Amino acid sequence: MKFSTKIFNSHSKADGDFFLEMKKILGFKPKNINIYKKAFLHRSLNKKDLNGNPLNYERLEFLGDAMLGTIISKHLYNEVPDGDEGYLTKMRSKIVSRKHLNELGRDLKLLNLVESRIPKSHFGENIHGNVFEAVIGAIYLDRGYHYCEKFINQRVIEPYVDIEQLEGKVISYKSLVIEWCQKQKKNFHYDVYEDTGNDELKHFAVKLSIEDRIAAKARATSKKKAEEKASKRAYFALQNKIEATQS
Amino acid sequence: MKFSTKIFNSHSKADGDFFLEMKKILGFKPKNINIYKKAFLHRSLNKKDLNGNPLNYERLEFLGDAMLGTIISKHLYNEVPDGDEGYLTKMRSKIVSRKHLNELGRDLKLLNLVESRIPKSHFGENIHGNVFEAVIGAIYLDRGYHYCEKFINQRVIEPYVDIEQLEGKVISYKSLVIEWCQKQKKNFHYDVYEDTGNDELKHFAVKLSIEDRIAAKARATSKKKAEEKASKRAYFALQNKIEATQS
Repeated sequence: MKFSTKIFNSHSKADGDFFLEMKKILGFKPKNINIYKKAFLHRSLNKKDLNGNPLNYERLEFLGDAMLGTIISKHLYNEVPDGDEGYLTKMRSKIVSRKHLNELGRDLKLLNLVESRIPKSHFGENIHGNVFEAVIGAIYLDRGYHYCEKFINQRVIEPYVDIEQLEGKVISYKSLVIEWCQKQKKNFHYDVYEDTGNDELKHFAVKLSIEDRIAAKARATSKKKAEEKASKRAYFALQNKIEATQS
Repeated sequence: MKFSTKIFNSHSKADGDFFLEMKKILGFKPKNINIYKKAFLHRSLNKKDLNGNPLNYERLEFLGDAMLGTIISKHLYNEVPDGDEGYLTKMRSKIVSRKHLNELGRDLKLLNLVESRIPKSHFGENIHGNVFEAVIGAIYLDRGYHYCEKFINQRVIEPYVDIEQLEGKVISYKSLVIEWCQKQKKNFHYDVYEDTGNDELKHFAVKLSIEDRIAAKARATSKKKAEEKASKRAYFALQNKIEATQS
């Protein structure tokens, strides 16, 4: 009796933990949590469902990959009105590149949730991106198109997709801001501190001050990203000033 | 005065015709008809919008291609629970092959609506599929995801996507039905007639009678497709009988 209670409790606690973890990653409540569990099952487990069908994240990855491509396509269509089909295709490839998706999956620490028979250290880099796509596939099945769009906007487009940077026109907003401050002989200061807040994922907050006044604030999952985000905001806020001094 | 009235009338009549034509193709009312107009502008026209951006169907085709892939992926995910990622990818490629999309676009007579500077006879086959994808892109922008799913279900999946046929397990339901009738010494008869009804697109209806009783009816845009559809219906209705005679 004691034994079965223990199993029951530990099982439901693990389930509860997974639910909370997913809620943090997704930014909304999962409806059918079992779909998300599948997104973390590695094929090495050799799991099967009741009908004998393979149970791992690869089919969800197939689905998520397609949905991610669609949402990014729509974003590019709207944001780059002068880009032709070939150009849009090239930009999309950059955004959904293996390297970029691995970064996104790593930032969300998805690997922590992966269940596998082989040690996680044996995985290549691509596991991060593959599981990231599988999570999108799970959202699609669980909550439909609009939640996918919301998730991709929040986790991919808003923090990381910058058309000008992708086009190579701007390498780094931080360097642009520093360059301007130095030319204008303005003092500036990046104040970085950890600010994880309610988010389970580690976050950093940055305050960028120019002439001792806060020019912009930002928050992201790494110091570098938070600084770049704050710099971008400051850059656009200052753009009129910068352009005036350049002309 | 008379002249300008004439221009106005002819313009609005053409617009009205286009709207009705699109309503028939789509199966629902367009909201912003201008988006659909773009889906039929060939690059040879060299049209530009007010901001000087190129105005032709190629960007919409980029968008529609992605959305079509997503909807088909979801369909396959649900319909083929035992297929792994590689298998699903292969099946999707078959469904969205150039050849298949050209067939779909040709059936809907989309070429009739294409505006171009070069004669339509000079186009290759791919214009049909490209414009078909552009129409899906236009639906996505005008009415969103769910209308795309509805359209693709009605125009692609329901009439043409047969997993067993794609897998090569069944070449033709018509031949299966005929074979069974001949073995069983049952008389059968395909009765085909044009039945365009309210649909502007030419349609054919088929009644398949076995032993002078109607076994199945179907309707499609070609005689061959209608016969195949009726045969498939009859096949599934008769399946128990057929399996009983085979074992």
